[in-house]
Amino acid sequence: MSHITLPEGLPGILAPMAFRPETAKPLNDLAQALLRGPSTLTAAERETIASYVSYLNDCYFCSSSHSAVAQRLWREKPGIVEAVKRDAQSAPVSDKLKTLLAIAAKVQQGGKQVSSEDIQKAKGQGATDIEIHDSILIAAAFCMYNRYVDGLATWTPKDDSIYEAIGERLEKAGYVMDPVPA
Amino acid sequence: MSHITLPEGLPGILAPMAFRPETAKPLNDLAQALLRGPSTLTAAERETIASYVSYLNDCYFCSSSHSAVAQRLWREKPGIVEAVKRDAQSAPVSDKLKTLLAIAAKVQQGGKQVSSEDIQKAKGQGATDIEIHDSILIAAAFCMYNRYVDGLATWTPKDDSIYEAIGERLEKAGYVMDPVPA
Repeated sequence: MSHITLPEGLPGILAPMAFRPETAKPLNDLAQALLRGPSTLTAAERETIASYVSYLNDCYFCSSSHSAVAQRLWREKPGIVEAVKRDAQSAPVSDKLKTLLAIAAKVQQGGKQVSSEDIQKAKGQGATDIEIHDSILIAAAFCMYNRYVDGLATWTPKDDSIYEAIGERLEKAGYVMDPVPA
Repeated sequence: MSHITLPEGLPGILAPMAFRPETAKPLNDLAQALLRGPSTLTAAERETIASYVSYLNDCYFCSSSHSAVAQRLWREKPGIVEAVKRDAQSAPVSDKLKTLLAIAAKVQQGGKQVSSEDIQKAKGQGATDIEIHDSILIAAAFCMYNRYVDGLATWTPKDDSIYEAIGERLEKAGYVMDPVPA
């Protein structure tokens, strides 16, 4: 049971977002800018960073939702998101993404954990300043979303079909909020 | 030196916000909604939660900036913000705020650390569901802002007068972004 009275039947972050639309708007805008806005990182790569950090934070709802959409976006690479969660450095992703995932894992522990060496490795694999910036902010943002979801003890369904449906919706619509019914 | 090339002369979060206005907008909108939007918690109380979490995350720039604005907003209570950072539970703040600070400290460690007992204590001191929600999201959001600032190794001046100036600006203008010059 969630720690406060939230709208019923909505899993994870969807319940507190419905409860508090004033903060839901910038939370969604941030996710949309980071995960779907113009970028030289693909949406699949960015969602993989999001799912990886959520996994490291042990947030079942966020990890399952973003794993589902990331895996859909990777299309021809079945199992790639699970491989990243098992061991990012041996997963079948680009060397550049491996360095960005390593930075994201440091951010998950704390901002000061990111070293100049981590950054140099990413630059050595061709990561641009904006790609490094966005990877750090995606990781930081999921340290927020994960704490929001679990700090309120929101409803966490364990039924995979729910996350498949969420993944499908996030692939199609992104994080643009539904217009408020008139 | 910051990990990526950022606009010069801007301390802390101001540099990556100038570097990436697409993400600065929702980051500022979120801070404005949480710390200045309509609430039964005062801006002083909300900024105190922000400064406390930033202090726990050892983020010098955020802790100093939000301590400065929080202390300005408390006005007739000199030293109150420093007292919270020293020991929130013995600081001269309301019993309700003490319970919200205790919840914020749990969120800083991880969302799952928040217990039903923590929530019951807050409700026992009269905290509403929205106040609990907002305290949790403020704490979670500063786990993001702090990681963003330190993960990029942004410039952290040690001159108190800079934080006094930031505190004064945040008191007057909040987190509404400056319009882009024409």
